[in-house]
Amino acid sequence: MTKYKARVYGYHLDLYGHVNNARYLEFLEAARWDFIEAHMPLSELNRLGIAFLVVNIDINYRRPVGLGQLLEIQTSMGYISTKSARVNQKIILSDRNEQVADATVTFVILDNRTKKVQPITGELKDMLNKFKM
Amino acid sequence: MTKYKARVYGYHLDLYGHVNNARYLEFLEAARWDFIEAHMPLSELNRLGIAFLVVNIDINYRRPVGLGQLLEIQTSMGYISTKSARVNQKIILSDRNEQVADATVTFVILDNRTKKVQPITGELKDMLNKFKM
Amino acid sequence: MTKYKARVYGYHLDLYGHVNNARYLEFLEAARWDFIEAHMPLSELNRLGIAFLVVNIDINYRRPVGLGQLLEIQTSMGYISTKSARVNQKIILSDRNEQVADATVTFVILDNRTKKVQPITGELKDMLNKFKM
Amino acid sequence: MTKYKARVYGYHLDLYGHVNNARYLEFLEAARWDFIEAHMPLSELNRLGIAFLVVNIDINYRRPVGLGQLLEIQTSMGYISTKSARVNQKIILSDRNEQVADATVTFVILDNRTKKVQPITGELKDMLNKFKM
Repeated sequence: MTKYKARVYGYHLDLYGHVNNARYLEFLEAARWDFIEAHMPLSELNRLGIAFLVVNIDINYRRPVGLGQLLEIQTSMGYISTKSARVNQKIILSDRNEQVADATVTFVILDNRTKKVQPITGELKDMLNKFKM
Repeated sequence: MTKYKARVYGYHLDLYGHVNNARYLEFLEAARWDFIEAHMPLSELNRLGIAFLVVNIDINYRRPVGLGQLLEIQTSMGYISTKSARVNQKIILSDRNEQVADATVTFVILDNRTKKVQPITGELKDMLNKFKM
Repeated sequence: MTKYKARVYGYHLDLYGHVNNARYLEFLEAARWDFIEAHMPLSELNRLGIAFLVVNIDINYRRPVGLGQLLEIQTSMGYISTKSARVNQKIILSDRNEQVADATVTFVILDNRTKKVQPITGELKDMLNKFKM
Repeated sequence: MTKYKARVYGYHLDLYGHVNNARYLEFLEAARWDFIEAHMPLSELNRLGIAFLVVNIDINYRRPVGLGQLLEIQTSMGYISTKSARVNQKIILSDRNEQVADATVTFVILDNRTKKVQPITGELKDMLNKFKM
């Protein structure tokens, strides 16, 4: 599991003074890039000629967050099937350990050239299993 | 059901040249504001002293979308319980009728002063039922 | 001059309940894509192997804008030199003709392959001059 | 001068694989909040009943930035007149000390209740002068 920190600034908020729904997905994405990098260089994705393609996001918004608050986004590898895999993400208030949101992100692996979904077997499965460590 | 149109511009795209995951949530939100306005003036929300608070979004990303494409976001009222209600949204390529994404958005009704969730009964239930027409 | 319309939704606003500074640049960019398309198909940019690269934006924010307001972004071609060219953009409240913001956007023309700036002469200058009509 | 660090992620990029123009303004805003906080608690703004209102941004885009790059945004106080004040901001590639962009941001001070611009004299001028240290 990786822990990615993000601060809430004015442009993250919407008319209610709370972080907008869409902005949470940006925090989650930042944390996933950070999660990938913690396990392998981003350039490795290019070498393998693959991309992680998100096919579903299921996100619960549990409490509002306002200006200046420090968020911690916890990211961990979830279930891996031969077709797709899941990443589990939790957003908490860093200083109070209160949960703000949680999400399950399902992705497939795309071959950059053929633009086709790759089965998660062999080398690809080994790679994703390393993300569990 | 309302149909909201949106065009894809450069700032919507990410490094893959496709609309970024988070941006879809902005299109969905725009379409929901449009959906509300099609049924009542936005000022009515202020008069009632309520806000729609999204508690869950479950979104499937079905095909990538690139620069210049015209999207149609279809929004309709879903299941209404006494605690929460759902809006169903589909994003299609406007000119080709191909589905790009679909989402179920669950929301509760918040009292702006007390910041407490209101039960969806009486006048509030009547109001939401009108969104089904 | 082209006139591009955009509606202000909740995710455009920031903690003050007004459209955030950065969001204006998205409205301006949308209007510029629209401006380009009004004069030539976007695919023409690919055929010519060029991109418009923005090198400076000078924007005045004149009055705040809130939820639900309809904006009109007026875009017109400005001064064209051999190195760079300018686009002038005005954002007004569509129904009240009040000016919200105005910007001068300076851009150069980039060769997509060499990634080098092209002098604005010959065919490229003719192309930009057509944007004045 | 404060130095604020930001990492470039996929959602910051646009169809050219480079940070989008509008996103730079988000980095600049984050750095300005950070700049304010380095000199006084954000809650002090509420106590004084004031807001910093940006009236002009003049930004030069000097070189493209891509995925994974670490940016440093340097923020310092510029010229202070009785009507408005300026903040100077530079974005550099953190590890290579190459300049990516620079901006001059002009702001006025707004009284939150009257929504009127305050002259920058007395206590307000003293406050801004402290930002120079």
